[in-house]
Amino acid sequence: MHTFLQIVEICDNFPYPDSSAEFSNVVPLTLNKTKIGILLPSTIDILREYNSRLDPAPLEISEKNVTFSAHITNFQERTEAMKQLFDTLRSEKKFAALEGWRNELYPVYGDINHPFNVAFVMERAATPILGIPTFGVHLNGYVKTPEGVIKMWIAKRASTKPTWPGKLDNTIAGGITYGFSINETIVKEAMEEANVSADISSTAVPTSAITYFTVTKFGLQPETQYIYDLEFPVDVRPKPLDDEVECFYLWDTDEVKKNLLEGNFKPNCALVVIDFFIRHSIITPDKEPDYIEILTRIHRRLEFPNPKMI
Amino acid sequence: MHTFLQIVEICDNFPYPDSSAEFSNVVPLTLNKTKIGILLPSTIDILREYNSRLDPAPLEISEKNVTFSAHITNFQERTEAMKQLFDTLRSEKKFAALEGWRNELYPVYGDINHPFNVAFVMERAATPILGIPTFGVHLNGYVKTPEGVIKMWIAKRASTKPTWPGKLDNTIAGGITYGFSINETIVKEAMEEANVSADISSTAVPTSAITYFTVTKFGLQPETQYIYDLEFPVDVRPKPLDDEVECFYLWDTDEVKKNLLEGNFKPNCALVVIDFFIRHSIITPDKEPDYIEILTRIHRRLEFPNPKMI
Repeated sequence: MHTFLQIVEICDNFPYPDSSAEFSNVVPLTLNKTKIGILLPSTIDILREYNSRLDPAPLEISEKNVTFSAHITNFQERTEAMKQLFDTLRSEKKFAALEGWRNELYPVYGDINHPFNVAFVMERAATPILGIPTFGVHLNGYVKTPEGVIKMWIAKRASTKPTWPGKLDNTIAGGITYGFSINETIVKEAMEEANVSADISSTAVPTSAITYFTVTKFGLQPETQYIYDLEFPVDVRPKPLDDEVECFYLWDTDEVKKNLLEGNFKPNCALVVIDFFIRHSIITPDKEPDYIEILTRIHRRLEFPNPKMI
Repeated sequence: MHTFLQIVEICDNFPYPDSSAEFSNVVPLTLNKTKIGILLPSTIDILREYNSRLDPAPLEISEKNVTFSAHITNFQERTEAMKQLFDTLRSEKKFAALEGWRNELYPVYGDINHPFNVAFVMERAATPILGIPTFGVHLNGYVKTPEGVIKMWIAKRASTKPTWPGKLDNTIAGGITYGFSINETIVKEAMEEANVSADISSTAVPTSAITYFTVTKFGLQPETQYIYDLEFPVDVRPKPLDDEVECFYLWDTDEVKKNLLEGNFKPNCALVVIDFFIRHSIITPDKEPDYIEILTRIHRRLEFPNPKMI
C-alpha cells in the first residue's frame, strides 16, 4: 500500500531543482527564445550527428541551447524538418520511443502568430525525445445514488495494450490530436472507448486540469490533462467498443481508493482520481497529512507555452 | 477590467526564478537545514545588529543562511527567542509590519518532533518580516436555485478595517491561529464574522486549497488557504456581527465575475473565487486562454514545510 503522495510521486517523478541535482544537465529546445521542449544530453549527441549530415543543417546546437536554424521560419518548415528528422531516426532505430510510432500528429505550442499558439506538429511517439509538453483530456464518469453517494465508472485497460496493459483507467481519456478541440476529443473518445453517445458525453463539465512531469524510458514527458466530470444517467453504462478497454467497473469510492493505493491505476489516471477525490471531499485536509503537497504536485508549473483558446 | 490571470498575478506577485532576477538575493531562514522562511537582505542587516547586542547571540547569520544558534534547541526556546526579538524591534519601530501587532500567535512549521510539525510560534504581524508561510481557511457560501443556478454570498469588508477596507471578501475567512484546527477555525469565524451557527457551518465541505506568494510593503508572504464550500439553506443569511464586515451580498456568478475582474475583491479572496469558478465550470478551458496557467499559479509550490494533520 502506498500513500496518496507516493502515488503522485510515481507520476510526477522529474526532480524539482531544489530537491535533486539529477537531470540538471538538460538543455532547452527553444523557439524565438521561448522554451518549447527539454533535451537530455544523450539526445543532443544524436541530434548533432544527424545535423552534421545535412546542408543546410536544420538545427542550431550549442552547449546551452537547441533551436531551429535561421532558414526554418514557419509552421510548415518546422513541421517538415521534424518529419525528416524523426523519419530518419526511426528508420535508423535510434530511439526506443519511435518503436511505438502512432501516425498521430501532436501540436507543439509556442508561436503566437499561428492559431492556438501552435508552432509546428510532430509525431506523437517522438514527443518524449524532445521533452515536448503534451495535452490530453480525462473524464471521470460517476453516478450518484438517491442518497447522494458517489460511485465511479473505472475502466480496465485491455491486456493487449502496448502501454500499461491491465491497469485501471479513467472512464474516458485521450490525447488531444492536432485539429481537435477538447470537446471534440471527449465526444470522439467517449464513442470509441466507451460506446457513450454524444448526447451523453456532451453533458460533461470541465472542473480542473492536472499538470505533472514524468520521466520514462522513452524520455521526458511534461503533461497536462484537462479534467471533466460526467454524471451518468443510471440507465447508461459505458461499454467496451474497440479493443482498448477490457471492461468497466462501477465502484464506490472506498473500492476506488483501495485500488488506487495498491498501485492498480495507470499512474497519470491515478492523479485524475486524486483530483476528483479532493474536489468531492473524499480526500480532506483534516485527515490527509500531505494535502497541500499533493495539490501543488498535481498542478506543477511546467514553464512551457500552453495552448491559447483550444 | 482585468483578465483572470492578471487578477491572479496581483496576488501571486513574487517572481518565479525563471522569469526575473528580482528578489534573487533573498536568504533562507532554516531549521535543521530545512527552509522555514525567507529573508530580504535589508532584514538581515537589522537582525545582525540586534544579534550583536546579545550574548549568547540567538541567531547564526551568514551570507547564505540564517538559523537559530546551537543553544536554542526546542519549541520553547525558539518561541522565547522570537518573542524577545520582535518585542524589541517593535519598541524600536524597526518594521512597519509590527505597527499592525495583533497579539495572535501563529505556528511556524518544520519540526517533525513536535505535534503537527510545529517548530515554534510567533506574533502573526511579524511573519512577513521572516517570510514565514501562513495558513488560513476561506469558505465559499452559496445557494442553488431550484433550477440549479448558483448564487454566492459575498462579504463587503468594513470601511474601518486596517487592511483592504471596503473590498469584497469570501463569505467566511480567517487565519489559523495556533491551537485551532481548520474545522474549529471555520466554526469560530462563521459565528464571529457572519453570525452563522455551528450546526450550519459544520456542514461545510473541504474542496481545495490555494497556495501563492505575495510581496507587500510588510515583507514576503507565502500563503496557503484551505478552501471549503458551504451550500446555505435558502432561509439562512449570513449577517454582520462584529465590525469586520459591512454587509453580505447574494450575487449571481455574472455579478461576482464582473466585480472580480474590476479588481473589487481583496486579492487573495479573488483567487478563492477563481478556484470556485473553475471547479463549478464557470471558468472553462474552451473559453479561458490562461486556464492552465491560472491553475498552476494558484497552486504554487512554496518549498516550505506544511502542517501535518491539522
